Amino acid sequence: MSHEPPVSLWPDPQALGPVTDLYELTMMVGYLASGMSGKSATFELFVRKMPTNRAYLVFAGLEQAIGDLLRLAFSTEQIEAMRRWPMFRGIDPAILDELGRMRFEGDVWAVPEGTVVFPGETLLRVEAPLPQAQWVETYLVASLAYPTLVASKAARVVSVAGGRPLQEFGARRGHGPHTGFLAARAAYIAGFAGTSHAEAARLLGIPATGTMAHSWVQSFPDEGSAFAAFARVFGASSTLLVDTYDTLEGVRRAAAIEPPIPAIRIDSGDLVELSRQARAILDQHGRAGTKIMASGDLDEQKVARIVESGAPVDGFGIGTELITSRDAPAMSMVYKLVELDGQGRYKLSPSKKTYPMAKQVYRRRDARGRFAGDHVTRADESAEGEPMLVPVVRGGRLAGPLPGLEEIRARCREQLESLPDRLRGLDAVPDYPLTYSEALEEDARRLMARGDHPEN
Amino acid sequence: MSHEPPVSLWPDPQALGPVTDLYELTMMVGYLASGMSGKSATFELFVRKMPTNRAYLVFAGLEQAIGDLLRLAFSTEQIEAMRRWPMFRGIDPAILDELGRMRFEGDVWAVPEGTVVFPGETLLRVEAPLPQAQWVETYLVASLAYPTLVASKAARVVSVAGGRPLQEFGARRGHGPHTGFLAARAAYIAGFAGTSHAEAARLLGIPATGTMAHSWVQSFPDEGSAFAAFARVFGASSTLLVDTYDTLEGVRRAAAIEPPIPAIRIDSGDLVELSRQARAILDQHGRAGTKIMASGDLDEQKVARIVESGAPVDGFGIGTELITSRDAPAMSMVYKLVELDGQGRYKLSPSKKTYPMAKQVYRRRDARGRFAGDHVTRADESAEGEPMLVPVVRGGRLAGPLPGLEEIRARCREQLESLPDRLRGLDAVPDYPLTYSEALEEDARRLMARGDHPEN
Repeated sequence: MSHEPPVSLWPDPQALGPVTDLYELTMMVGYLASGMSGKSATFELFVRKMPTNRAYLVFAGLEQAIGDLLRLAFSTEQIEAMRRWPMFRGIDPAILDELGRMRFEGDVWAVPEGTVVFPGETLLRVEAPLPQAQWVETYLVASLAYPTLVASKAARVVSVAGGRPLQEFGARRGHGPHTGFLAARAAYIAGFAGTSHAEAARLLGIPATGTMAHSWVQSFPDEGSAFAAFARVFGASSTLLVDTYDTLEGVRRAAAIEPPIPAIRIDSGDLVELSRQARAILDQHGRAGTKIMASGDLDEQKVARIVESGAPVDGFGIGTELITSRDAPAMSMVYKLVELDGQGRYKLSPSKKTYPMAKQVYRRRDARGRFAGDHVTRADESAEGEPMLVPVVRGGRLAGPLPGLEEIRARCREQLESLPDRLRGLDAVPDYPLTYSEALEEDARRLMARGDHPEN
Repeated sequence: MSHEPPVSLWPDPQALGPVTDLYELTMMVGYLASGMSGKSATFELFVRKMPTNRAYLVFAGLEQAIGDLLRLAFSTEQIEAMRRWPMFRGIDPAILDELGRMRFEGDVWAVPEGTVVFPGETLLRVEAPLPQAQWVETYLVASLAYPTLVASKAARVVSVAGGRPLQEFGARRGHGPHTGFLAARAAYIAGFAGTSHAEAARLLGIPATGTMAHSWVQSFPDEGSAFAAFARVFGASSTLLVDTYDTLEGVRRAAAIEPPIPAIRIDSGDLVELSRQARAILDQHGRAGTKIMASGDLDEQKVARIVESGAPVDGFGIGTELITSRDAPAMSMVYKLVELDGQGRYKLSPSKKTYPMAKQVYRRRDARGRFAGDHVTRADESAEGEPMLVPVVRGGRLAGPLPGLEEIRARCREQLESLPDRLRGLDAVPDYPLTYSEALEEDARRLMARGDHPEN
């Protein structure tokens, strides 16, 4: 059973229909086969619990999630394969034909990307015929949770960098080669200055940044000739990596290059100490304008320590820790049925209180413009503050143009500036006030009293 | 700067050339501009350090890594965009034209997928003209590290499951919607029985598995009618999720379905206690043939505890913990220049001893066939044991058909059965013997003595 060519896992973007858990497809078929495909469902996406080490989240990933959702479809080949699967063998072929014609035709409301959000509040609401609303569960969670994790982690790094530019450097450490796109975008939203990911930079219009690898230096007879060759080719774009052999020797060689190079990068060792010594060497050589960039397994704690130390580091490259959101690589983002044909729905669970019915979230600010608390209401109620969920998709089409990446990034900046001081520190306790309207509490009580027969 | 349609991040698989760190492209241009593109380079990929909680690794991801590498190319659009980037503005347009024509034309040697491997040994070796060998660095690491992490974690779960079938359930918790493909495949290689990822199952020929979500149950007037409807549509393929409202009530309702259903799934609560009570209820109802499947934030530790308890769980669904490799979401896999035009190369670094020159790895087994130790040699040496690196690509083409997924899985099973007993436990200490040939030690000493001028 060997084969050629190798199986590619970059699937056709026009056939993302089955890029999901099988049970979503099974349930879709089940709803179609049970005459329930006309039922109008409302599902809501939210985060159950704050991830480790976070006191706030930055919502990201919506543009790609929505773009893919509007193109969700099955190829003929996919439908034919499904007919042969054990669970679909007994199904009326007309039902799989219907699946093959399905598109997402519903409505989506969502919090805009770049918004600071908290567990327990609705971030996105889907209103669609039941099979369509079910279809998008896995896809939406997979598309939104990861960018939100990365943007939330990136915001923490930004918060301690004292305005120094940060570069996203993680491409090779992402979970597969596709991940770098999402990480580059999420980091940029949260305030990073650029990414090393060349194609993400091109597609998304993010500044691309890059220096050299140690292999460049090793490919020349000596470090001096490696530096000279690079500077000859790239001139004013040359950032030289100085730690291939002996870091301070490397700094001396970099300082000798004419005309002066714009920056050096140190990727290993004691970054505080080495940057101080490097600064002194550069200054002695009349290279006050040459900046020092630091990288090497950095996270927000290490960046904070370097910045607090007063070390002369002018910018940071952040890789592994950010792209894997290493201290919190997963999040309890869920997508739950809350309403069916106008009737509230929810899952009883002792440890997981949830609320039925379509919802809106209102955010109040204090006199200084800082976030004072969020209030969750039924979608048909109104309350004080700014409504956070806005229409994004109506009847399977974009409700309006999506914001551009710079607009999202600007929104995120304002949002982060509006955080209460007590939530800003790296060790902040997540205690943001979130309340539910009396109508929602009453809906929840009423359904709970009915036990496991919500409609009886 | 708002826009429509949304930017898609499923890039054209024919234009993966810049799906990499910018510095790889910068260095390629630099080598071309410096007249070094004819130099013959050897790079090697290896893992520096064993990740947390692991005593061995399962190498995976090679088929997709190689398949993509053979198609690496730039689109005209990409090259035109690069001409406008600051670092390339001063570059001779003919050099970017040359980049636009570049393909990978080198050789690749690699350890077969499904092989048990250890830090410090060469897993893959690229021999190619310098710019091409440099090009593939980010791509290869991003393509191999993650599947290896997942396969290695999956092998741990398999090792404690006592032969019970395991299903990969993580699609929504992967780092973006692309990741599920890689995870489903890696888990299957390591011995999982199937995946919930419908498209991964179809593309790769893995058994697809699925039950229902709580939303199915919530979409019906009561749990009994939800179960009956599902069983009516799916018959002998029906696994019923019993914990939407009250788990044991759910089990009683599932047990009442005629004809008997094949399985139930419990997704929350005390799985040991609930599975025992569920088993008793099922047996009392003459449902001895109905199996019990457990899921809900399971990892190898929890599976081990359930199995050790003797709880009547017949299979497990494993999601978040596996797809994020949560306890070890990253690994120090690196790709280093070891030889240039036949001369050894390596980076001096106090804490990171590496060896120059193209290498081979020989594995010795003891009398029982168990792995006794690996010995790393120069590629031109021979040694006792089985040579682990085999030719995969020659001159930019597959050296031969790649093994099929079942063959890889069978190889992995044999490999895991050949592990020394002391490396098998969940708390095993990573102490597998790895030695380097005297010729390699001598090469390393010789280069180190030359300090930072390896060729002087």
